[in-house]
Amino acid sequence: MHPKSTPSATSVHDLPTPAALVDVDALEHNLSTMASLLPGALLRPHVKAHKSTALAEMQRRHGHRHFTCATVREMVGLANAGFGDDLLLANEVVDVDRLRELAALQDDALITVAVDSDTTVDAAAGAGIRHVLIDVNIGLPRCGCTPGDAARLAQRARDRGLVVRGVMGYEGHLMVSDDRSAQQRDTLTAMELLRAAAREVGGDIISAGGTGNHDVHATNRDRTGVTEVQAGSYALMDTYYSTLNLPFRQALTILGTVISTHEKWAVIDVGLKSLGMDHGNPSIAGHKVWFCSDEHLTFATDKRDAAATAPADAAVPRAPQPAVGTRVRVIPAHVDPTMAMHDSFYLVRGDEVLDRLPIDLRGW
Amino acid sequence: MHPKSTPSATSVHDLPTPAALVDVDALEHNLSTMASLLPGALLRPHVKAHKSTALAEMQRRHGHRHFTCATVREMVGLANAGFGDDLLLANEVVDVDRLRELAALQDDALITVAVDSDTTVDAAAGAGIRHVLIDVNIGLPRCGCTPGDAARLAQRARDRGLVVRGVMGYEGHLMVSDDRSAQQRDTLTAMELLRAAAREVGGDIISAGGTGNHDVHATNRDRTGVTEVQAGSYALMDTYYSTLNLPFRQALTILGTVISTHEKWAVIDVGLKSLGMDHGNPSIAGHKVWFCSDEHLTFATDKRDAAATAPADAAVPRAPQPAVGTRVRVIPAHVDPTMAMHDSFYLVRGDEVLDRLPIDLRGW
Repeated sequence: MHPKSTPSATSVHDLPTPAALVDVDALEHNLSTMASLLPGALLRPHVKAHKSTALAEMQRRHGHRHFTCATVREMVGLANAGFGDDLLLANEVVDVDRLRELAALQDDALITVAVDSDTTVDAAAGAGIRHVLIDVNIGLPRCGCTPGDAARLAQRARDRGLVVRGVMGYEGHLMVSDDRSAQQRDTLTAMELLRAAAREVGGDIISAGGTGNHDVHATNRDRTGVTEVQAGSYALMDTYYSTLNLPFRQALTILGTVISTHEKWAVIDVGLKSLGMDHGNPSIAGHKVWFCSDEHLTFATDKRDAAATAPADAAVPRAPQPAVGTRVRVIPAHVDPTMAMHDSFYLVRGDEVLDRLPIDLRGW
Repeated sequence: MHPKSTPSATSVHDLPTPAALVDVDALEHNLSTMASLLPGALLRPHVKAHKSTALAEMQRRHGHRHFTCATVREMVGLANAGFGDDLLLANEVVDVDRLRELAALQDDALITVAVDSDTTVDAAAGAGIRHVLIDVNIGLPRCGCTPGDAARLAQRARDRGLVVRGVMGYEGHLMVSDDRSAQQRDTLTAMELLRAAAREVGGDIISAGGTGNHDVHATNRDRTGVTEVQAGSYALMDTYYSTLNLPFRQALTILGTVISTHEKWAVIDVGLKSLGMDHGNPSIAGHKVWFCSDEHLTFATDKRDAAATAPADAAVPRAPQPAVGTRVRVIPAHVDPTMAMHDSFYLVRGDEVLDRLPIDLRGW
């Protein structure tokens, strides 16, 4: 969205802002760490977290050739970019026109869509989709049929000529927990539901999980029976998942420029139109974020304000006021919607800009 | 972002979802109501609220030829689309390359940028910008110089060859209040600060205000001295401003499709990537919204849940479960970031689709 691209910029200090930065070393660490825990087809990376074929290519280089999508746009974009080995739309679609777009890809790509009702089964069959997974509700109040209805739906799908490859479920309510042993226990309970449905449905796929409980799946596969995990956020990370002490580093930051300074605060040009806000305010290392407006973020420049736990009279020195023009990195609270607000990201190492890559799977 | 556009769709029931809908009658009501309260140049519509030259054209048809922008992208886009009569960038920019993009427009457009520091004055002058406003802080902890520094900055700007057209201030902390008489009192106090700065700065523009207190400005112009109001949200509205009982109607909704139903809830394909979430959850008439995920919204289908104030044992009948495929309209909590997430909107009257128009000023 910057009309004048800056391919010659070799420093983040020369970039137009706001700009999405991805630290290549943190990214590589995250990709290789996950690939060692869930190698190859055990991970079906969820591209909704980054919406970029360039990042999918990096995940493929780490051995993952099957991808999870949340939108038709992501499916079509990945297939057209040559990522069609095994694409799962882990979401329900009843729009037959959109499903036909997917069906038209099937000579070159393996396309599978989730279904959880008579209507979605019939829409998929009517559009000429060949492969489905039965989406089973395992506790999150969202999509998925009741476990007891899975076998009936699978039969209906087969009666309509669809190949039922197995089941998926998403235990999204268990992704973040202060009590990780309870998280493990509840994940295993949810997987009992999914595994039971899988036995009745047939097929060879049992797909579930995410970044927040990837380790529960990785270390208990004999108990969960899951054949693949749908994690996405692990690649770039955010402050929401950072509370779990997962083995992933913060790779994504949004770069801003200080445009205004005051006695007790400064303002950067990173606002809520460049940050996913549903998980609350973003963070700035060493500073307390006061609030975000459409195109602004106001943060405290008084270190006493940053150190909220310090006594009010503590002799914490006032930090030097950042100069107008200073670059500041903001850590988003939620990676997925943040990436969806940018049309490209810069691959960086420290302050060095290595590349600019498109976020090409945005929209629906 | 729907690869296959549907120009032939004449009903919202045929549209791909999620889709931004703008009700033409509500929009026209809002535009004409505001144009009667603040006609012509008394309103400088803020395009950050809709990011669409098509909507700016409608505002121009209602007599407003001067526009407010928050980003360089909005300025360049409006100027290139022939809206260059008088464009104000009501925001600070220190990136000289971006300012040069604006300066290059000045033979065809009147470009004015806000400045609030030595650095922003010098950047504007260095880039060849000709006109500035002194941005004065009048209470919101964000941009703007202290009122006492305005005259000095104006002198610095004039010394650098810039034409200082006057002052602007944004009393954003006063936009929404439960106590509208306190809002009026505080707005008038803030305007005293701005007017005092204006007297020292010179020029003929005193620019301030927004949708939330447009009426305070409209009915007290002799006391505030404001020459123009920067309202933007009034055109499309959201649930945040709807609490004020302003004379504007809800024109924007996000259309979704029910993709999954359950005993107590249903799910539509309008998620937090298609809704500004910084003001909290959106609303659905007659239903309680439980939560939004990236691509989903879960809402209660039990009327007892919607009617939170009813006693638990009230004989409120359970609402009929919406069928999968049913269309549902969602009212966003915050209009500006919601529009920024869509690449187009549909102009509708009831369920009839009249036109599809681009949201062409997104990004930075």
